[in-house]
Amino acid sequence: MKNRQIHLVKRPQGVVTPDCFALVEADMPVPGEGQVLVQNLWLSLDPYMRGRMDEAKSYAAVQPLNAVMTGGTAGVVAESNNPKYAKGDLVVGALGWQEYGVSDGSGQYGAPLRKVTDRIPLSAYLGCVGMPGVTAWHGVNKIIEPKAGETLVVTAASGAVGSVVGQLAKAKGVRVVGIAGGAAKCAYVRDELGFDACIDYKAGEIGAALAEAAPKGIDGVFENVGGPIFDAILPRMNAFGRVALCGTISGYNGAPSALTNLRSILTNRLRVQGFIVSDHLNEWPEALAELIGLVADGRLKYRESVAQGIASAPQAFIGLLKGENFGKQLVKLA
Amino acid sequence: MKNRQIHLVKRPQGVVTPDCFALVEADMPVPGEGQVLVQNLWLSLDPYMRGRMDEAKSYAAVQPLNAVMTGGTAGVVAESNNPKYAKGDLVVGALGWQEYGVSDGSGQYGAPLRKVTDRIPLSAYLGCVGMPGVTAWHGVNKIIEPKAGETLVVTAASGAVGSVVGQLAKAKGVRVVGIAGGAAKCAYVRDELGFDACIDYKAGEIGAALAEAAPKGIDGVFENVGGPIFDAILPRMNAFGRVALCGTISGYNGAPSALTNLRSILTNRLRVQGFIVSDHLNEWPEALAELIGLVADGRLKYRESVAQGIASAPQAFIGLLKGENFGKQLVKLA
Repeated sequence: MKNRQIHLVKRPQGVVTPDCFALVEADMPVPGEGQVLVQNLWLSLDPYMRGRMDEAKSYAAVQPLNAVMTGGTAGVVAESNNPKYAKGDLVVGALGWQEYGVSDGSGQYGAPLRKVTDRIPLSAYLGCVGMPGVTAWHGVNKIIEPKAGETLVVTAASGAVGSVVGQLAKAKGVRVVGIAGGAAKCAYVRDELGFDACIDYKAGEIGAALAEAAPKGIDGVFENVGGPIFDAILPRMNAFGRVALCGTISGYNGAPSALTNLRSILTNRLRVQGFIVSDHLNEWPEALAELIGLVADGRLKYRESVAQGIASAPQAFIGLLKGENFGKQLVKLA
Repeated sequence: MKNRQIHLVKRPQGVVTPDCFALVEADMPVPGEGQVLVQNLWLSLDPYMRGRMDEAKSYAAVQPLNAVMTGGTAGVVAESNNPKYAKGDLVVGALGWQEYGVSDGSGQYGAPLRKVTDRIPLSAYLGCVGMPGVTAWHGVNKIIEPKAGETLVVTAASGAVGSVVGQLAKAKGVRVVGIAGGAAKCAYVRDELGFDACIDYKAGEIGAALAEAAPKGIDGVFENVGGPIFDAILPRMNAFGRVALCGTISGYNGAPSALTNLRSILTNRLRVQGFIVSDHLNEWPEALAELIGLVADGRLKYRESVAQGIASAPQAFIGLLKGENFGKQLVKLA
């Protein structure tokens, strides 16, 4: 039996293309002393992975060429030589784009390979109860800190991070305006997630739509996109507004995220805080406990785009960068 | 006897031109009950005034047309109907671009018309011991908070704000790199103010010069300029760097301050804080007490560009926006 993997074999020049990746059939890994063999059931595809494909300086290590693509995974222990894990344990870690992986118990973002219970669906640990969910939690609770009656705008609102941002803020009595691409996503954000409004950035000029959706101005922004959308938000911010800068996906395929409204940061005395959730590992237990409770109680809704089989990962990732996913992008392996 | 004034008579379209202003001879004002007549000895010219000349939303009130240009002043009480002030008192306030003004004791930025002593030169109260000095103090002590061994970059380094920023940071054991326009300003910043390095942005590519002057990267930025200079600084910042965004003078004459390195804010987890010193009136007493002591002891150096007579104010202001001043730009009236 072979272990199928996706390797990065070429660095993208701007847009990511399928020939950057190769499907490789490797031998099944054999766990050594203190190690476990994990069968990956789910792969997480996330925008941050695009940054690692370049050789340029980024916050994360550069993805090596001709090696398994790194990334978050959820699976089941198939074999254990480690007393902390038993065969059949459900585990969340970072075993990469492959069907099986070996771990000594060290996991993702410096945290250990984490055993989880089946109280909620396993895939949720890669989304709203995982890195994307904690990212949303940190931006809302530690950076924007919105107060009841304020207005918060979140971009990529139907995505894994944005959907959690809006729901956490709504629960605090905040007016929440999403920005998403397409009528279907906007309808979901409004009708299913309960945002007060959602602007379809593909449907026309954002500025006028923002003025209508945020009539009292904007106090907080959770920014996943950058580029012209962020530029349209800035002049509409209220004094002392806060921006949690989480992503700039509009520029991930090579186009620089040019910003012409820098002066708004000064005139509105804004605070713009770039952040990476892995810098805040100490907050994960509190955030995860809150998020798992909300999911278990049905108070935190989420949606997944599921690609089937390891071979589908490259195309699903390329689609994610184009906004073709709808909710958290996953690859189901078994 | 007449009171000569400068009025704004036309809003600039981009670049400020002399015909935006008119010299007006008004009647001498007569102080009413509770009022004082002040002879202005010095006018302060500051970049923020450019923003007020537009009709666009800014943090400050829009400068009305066909009215005296607003601005900080230092002068002497010529006549008093207010028991808090005596004839001959030296006072700092905001009586605008005119030779004489009347005040009921309310002054600039919500603070009262302030009596000052002659322990230091009167003009210093418009510069390093006034609004520009407190601006520098707030940015250094409340936003950047540089630690010994860190590197701080300040733009417009020879100016009223930048020169104080660098000297305050140097006293904390910080490596201070200035950016200024021209060899003379850079020599002054290095040799007189004691900065570790100063980059002449007119002399060539800033990126390479920054790499040399800040070999360990940049931890704090006090930004007065915006535009391409800020864009060149951003990618060279260290993780968790702080930017005090005080001004964007490069864009004040109409050109937008386009920023292409937004992503650096994310990857380096920067905090960018726009601020206006008048939001922090509670800090003024502490800041002024410290600054006046430093000037009196000769530990805080400053330089002034002095234009002579009220009629010279428009041209001096236009020169300020082009960087033709060298240190704090003042107009001496008597």
